[in-house]
Amino acid sequence: MTAQTEADRDWLGALSKRLGERLSTAPALLEQHGRDESYHPSEAPEAVAFAESTEEVAEIVRICARHGKPVIPRGTGTSLEGHVAALSGGLSLDLTRMNAVVEVNAEDLDCMVQAGVTRKQLNTHLRDTGLFFPIDPGADASLGGMAATGASGTNAVRYGTIRENVLGLTVVLADGSVVHTGGRARKSSAGYDMTRLMIGSEGTLGIITELRLKLHGQPEAVASAVCGFPELDGAVGTAMMVIQSGIPVARMELLDDVQMDAVNRLSGLDYPVQPTIFFEFHGSAAGVAEQSERTGEIAREMGGEDFRWATNAEERTKLWQARHDAYYAAISMRPGAKGWPTDVCVPISRLAECILETKRDIAESGLYAPIVGHVGDGNFHLILVIDPEDREEFERAEALNARLVGRALAMGGTCTGEHGVGYGKMGFLKQEHGDLLPAMAAVKRALDPKNILNPGKIVAV
Amino acid sequence: MTAQTEADRDWLGALSKRLGERLSTAPALLEQHGRDESYHPSEAPEAVAFAESTEEVAEIVRICARHGKPVIPRGTGTSLEGHVAALSGGLSLDLTRMNAVVEVNAEDLDCMVQAGVTRKQLNTHLRDTGLFFPIDPGADASLGGMAATGASGTNAVRYGTIRENVLGLTVVLADGSVVHTGGRARKSSAGYDMTRLMIGSEGTLGIITELRLKLHGQPEAVASAVCGFPELDGAVGTAMMVIQSGIPVARMELLDDVQMDAVNRLSGLDYPVQPTIFFEFHGSAAGVAEQSERTGEIAREMGGEDFRWATNAEERTKLWQARHDAYYAAISMRPGAKGWPTDVCVPISRLAECILETKRDIAESGLYAPIVGHVGDGNFHLILVIDPEDREEFERAEALNARLVGRALAMGGTCTGEHGVGYGKMGFLKQEHGDLLPAMAAVKRALDPKNILNPGKIVAV
Repeated sequence: MTAQTEADRDWLGALSKRLGERLSTAPALLEQHGRDESYHPSEAPEAVAFAESTEEVAEIVRICARHGKPVIPRGTGTSLEGHVAALSGGLSLDLTRMNAVVEVNAEDLDCMVQAGVTRKQLNTHLRDTGLFFPIDPGADASLGGMAATGASGTNAVRYGTIRENVLGLTVVLADGSVVHTGGRARKSSAGYDMTRLMIGSEGTLGIITELRLKLHGQPEAVASAVCGFPELDGAVGTAMMVIQSGIPVARMELLDDVQMDAVNRLSGLDYPVQPTIFFEFHGSAAGVAEQSERTGEIAREMGGEDFRWATNAEERTKLWQARHDAYYAAISMRPGAKGWPTDVCVPISRLAECILETKRDIAESGLYAPIVGHVGDGNFHLILVIDPEDREEFERAEALNARLVGRALAMGGTCTGEHGVGYGKMGFLKQEHGDLLPAMAAVKRALDPKNILNPGKIVAV
Repeated sequence: MTAQTEADRDWLGALSKRLGERLSTAPALLEQHGRDESYHPSEAPEAVAFAESTEEVAEIVRICARHGKPVIPRGTGTSLEGHVAALSGGLSLDLTRMNAVVEVNAEDLDCMVQAGVTRKQLNTHLRDTGLFFPIDPGADASLGGMAATGASGTNAVRYGTIRENVLGLTVVLADGSVVHTGGRARKSSAGYDMTRLMIGSEGTLGIITELRLKLHGQPEAVASAVCGFPELDGAVGTAMMVIQSGIPVARMELLDDVQMDAVNRLSGLDYPVQPTIFFEFHGSAAGVAEQSERTGEIAREMGGEDFRWATNAEERTKLWQARHDAYYAAISMRPGAKGWPTDVCVPISRLAECILETKRDIAESGLYAPIVGHVGDGNFHLILVIDPEDREEFERAEALNARLVGRALAMGGTCTGEHGVGYGKMGFLKQEHGDLLPAMAAVKRALDPKNILNPGKIVAV
């Protein structure tokens, strides 16, 4: 840390007076709070504050606003585009101690949680209620962070993204005022949709401190299956037909041949090394049987091999473990390397073409990059496994990623299906929505005129 | 119309030069364009323009911006809270001629339409594709108007509101620039959710000229049923249990005893005069059978009478006609009177209590007000049938409506589930979201600094 100016001392003094030991400037903590799970290097904040209530967050924001210091909200730090980097210094506001499940209303299928509650913590809390919260981005992320990032994941094909599963938010605005968006009604047309404006705004428009979430009934029956395909076309064609047929599949995850090989090696499995779809079906026993049967017929028509089935919880967990381990399997193929998960989403009719072109591009690039995809949504990731120290390789990966985004945009897709923009994708956001950036910047300036909320992310002002 | 100033002549001249006969100042047309379907009196604009393209809308907005004149976009005029009233004069921008279905992508279950396409027109267009657009607010509204209003209706319990069924929008902003929000990907985390910000903004932040919509597969099987209940509690309890059980009911509409009596009288039907639910189930044949059976069991446990079933299209249409005619049935009970449909939404656990208290309040008020509700969402309407000339009666209705909103808010609900704010509910919006109004006003000022887009609606600036 550089020498503190008097102004900095005033700012830290004011925070310290309020927070005591919950304000820290320990170098290791600063370094850790300046990085997320991505390849982006740490950009350390000047201090880290651990908040314990909405009112405390409001006071912290007021102090930072008075001193013109950035505030960067942080949950579990599992973002992937540098969302938490302190590009202009300031305070990392750690919300992980705000981890209370405030209330569960089983009758209304809703709950209220503090922002630091993680999705697994919530589902553990709900276990005996017959309810669950379906959004599963992979990481055990905080729900506040998931909302701020616009997260989704494997279950979105059936249950929607977090965007469709938030009823309302408590938000601290840039002037330290506390506001409540949405409410407990299942729907509302009462004014501008400030809930959705905050979702995906990555802490740049306000700091989410509490969320009211929709819950869903735990399905009566669940069945999982794995099916390999000789050709990628058949796998993606199956996904497309399942969606077009209106089969309410709960999960439909593609792993390409390269990824299946990695999964086999990490976990000592013997799946055929070919494009493979992991399915999950939720419903009544009869409903699940019908969905499974119809999906099986489609897969067979598309050249799929026999389904491997799992219906009891233990077998299902084992089967899905292969999918859940995809990321670690990929990076374990190259000791010392880092994973860089890219994230595009295209119309499903273009998905096979987009993946096949991308696989050719990966081959030509000489990079190692298995593919996993939430194929029901047209969303897929390359896991670029790179040596972060090798500048030339990093640049090749950057170029590959830029071509991937360009390809997705040319097909009517988006530069990010679920990871968000952070500062890593600001150039791509301009490429996709250049016409909209002035309006986004106007909204940012309106709600954060001093530019203190996570500055330098999403849109430059 | 008052005498025109020179400035007005310049403004009309510029518009007229661009639009020719598609600009009108005919008094009857002005009067008609200043009113919607509600009890709110007409507030006539100074002129009406019929736009035929996005570029033309942009030019019109630029002309109005230059002259500081309001622009009030208008679809079918079926709004219910004075959304289209020209409170500060200006131009009514009629979009009904922009009624082309631009493209349908059956493989991706999406389509692009101009804002003036109505929902029935779109579904007629889609008839042979195996797809349909589910949002049904009752009126054959324009899709642009439905998005601007945040509409929903009978199918929302299964398919979501229009909020969840728009992938992207073409919008003309207050400076006449044309922007595209969202895209063709099923999901995206690319920057602020400008699509959802425009949805429900009632033309105050931008003018929607095109919409990219999600489509759904026409269900293989459809079944409808009607079930009466001796007590309202049993009817609402049935709705609550159906939702909690995760039965994917497509429609679940409550008509109270007063409304059933009106329906019987209008259409010569013989339904028992009691709280009644109209159900519709969509799915595979087996799925529909299972949903129907489980719902029947729940209804019986809750004291419901036998189901009247309809499975073929003709019987279903006849059965649902009673529900579709509810509004006309209600107003036909009192010749010369007008209908004033109110609109609140509460957590479903409070719905029975809210409706029962409201029925007592209606009885005490001496007003005639049948109740219909999208009970799966907790959303219900009183159809206040009033003599618009009777000031005292109107004030009693206003007071009843205010108590209804107060009751809904006290129960954690919203002042409008689907009709929107217009200028009729601005006071209630303040009651519900007073803390948020400064942020809403900041967004309005940021995107419409001259306050020319439908001024005086939603939020005062």
